[in-house]
Amino acid sequence: MKMLRFRKDGRVQWGWLMGEDHVTPMRKLDGEPAGEVYPIRELELLPPAEPSKIVCVGRNYADHIKEMGHAFGEDLPAEPGLFLKAPNTLVPSGAEVTYPDWTEELHYEGELAAVIGQTARNVGEEEALGYVLGYTNALDLTARDKQKSDLQWIRAKSADGFLPLGPVLETELDPNATVVRTWVNDELRQEASTELMIFPVARVISYVSRFMTLEPGDVVLTGTPSGVGPLARGDRVRVEVEGVGRALEVRIV
Amino acid sequence: MKMLRFRKDGRVQWGWLMGEDHVTPMRKLDGEPAGEVYPIRELELLPPAEPSKIVCVGRNYADHIKEMGHAFGEDLPAEPGLFLKAPNTLVPSGAEVTYPDWTEELHYEGELAAVIGQTARNVGEEEALGYVLGYTNALDLTARDKQKSDLQWIRAKSADGFLPLGPVLETELDPNATVVRTWVNDELRQEASTELMIFPVARVISYVSRFMTLEPGDVVLTGTPSGVGPLARGDRVRVEVEGVGRALEVRIV
Repeated sequence: MKMLRFRKDGRVQWGWLMGEDHVTPMRKLDGEPAGEVYPIRELELLPPAEPSKIVCVGRNYADHIKEMGHAFGEDLPAEPGLFLKAPNTLVPSGAEVTYPDWTEELHYEGELAAVIGQTARNVGEEEALGYVLGYTNALDLTARDKQKSDLQWIRAKSADGFLPLGPVLETELDPNATVVRTWVNDELRQEASTELMIFPVARVISYVSRFMTLEPGDVVLTGTPSGVGPLARGDRVRVEVEGVGRALEVRIV
Repeated sequence: MKMLRFRKDGRVQWGWLMGEDHVTPMRKLDGEPAGEVYPIRELELLPPAEPSKIVCVGRNYADHIKEMGHAFGEDLPAEPGLFLKAPNTLVPSGAEVTYPDWTEELHYEGELAAVIGQTARNVGEEEALGYVLGYTNALDLTARDKQKSDLQWIRAKSADGFLPLGPVLETELDPNATVVRTWVNDELRQEASTELMIFPVARVISYVSRFMTLEPGDVVLTGTPSGVGPLARGDRVRVEVEGVGRALEVRIV
């Protein structure tokens, strides 16, 4: 089932997607339909999460670690390498994202995102996926030059608009058996099975929850596969996780 | 004037401190008193901020950069080195903070914190302090071993309870002419004038606002002076910024 968050008549609501192009709002986030049906074209779609924090895995596909120039031979990371993005980064599908004037190297990184549904503290790997409300498409925009030169990855990863997310949350996906794809101007640039993740989603959530309480609405980005690259003003970027569907698409301006 | 955030009878409110030990609640955050007066001892004091993000300066006092082992000669950083803490770190003065079992090196870092009062985007340095609601005491707890070994500083800086903050917000402080002091078990460990900051508070806020929109309630930590060091279970840590007063005090358990 696919959930959406939207604004209609000034009011932010959640709803279920019915068929291809209708949405029925929910009375509460736990899912009871309210009875009305809206055509999706009448709604302003919003990112399907309201996180207090956004936790990201920096290196989770071996081929992406290699392309970033990190030699590791047999030494894959022993623990997930994490970083934060701040909530000011969130924009919906359809947004125009400004290419900042302080970077010369804005890169796309398509990813699978998990949105947390219940407070998760010290959860085991075997139960971790039960704390996920659903999965969606994410574009982890990155100022690669500042990622290299700054003390930490905050400007590189947390500038305004640097996390297009959505538009739908799929509640029934198997995050270990799907495919992440990224296109730039309709050219396929990234394509990888999530089976290739070094740390599966459940292990990441369990690991994070040992030091940081995850709250409903928090977002976990699961890392990007190889094929990252630079963007130019005017580019259209599309990310679609198989099974989530309803591609995320933004334009860089 | 000193503002507080507190819970009374299950309801979270803001108020003004009257004299030493009374609080008058506000009708709204912009300051109109509601008429009642509460003895402060009847209130559960909360961190005086509800941030969507917490932005921190990593290296803002030359003597602390030296003690961390970074040689720099004449080369002070040209731009503030920033990192994020996540909101799960916030705890009030009086809290007991758990020494995590995954670190061997929990350090205190006493700091001056600024709490943002108005949305700040691309603000100039000369007007930046006008976006501050007030100033308070902060303890930036840090897992020094994980800061060195992890990919980024998230576990080192953003574990649950790693940001004791408060208890009062002083609205009329000059952040460029005060003194930050930290005690461990009543022994003075850090003492430095904020005049020694490499990047004054106004410059930090202006710099951040060029890539990240600051929202009301957001917190800016301004860096720690020299004198940081390890904590043990049972230690009491106290931070007091001169002019803010009402020391922040927590116990490590």
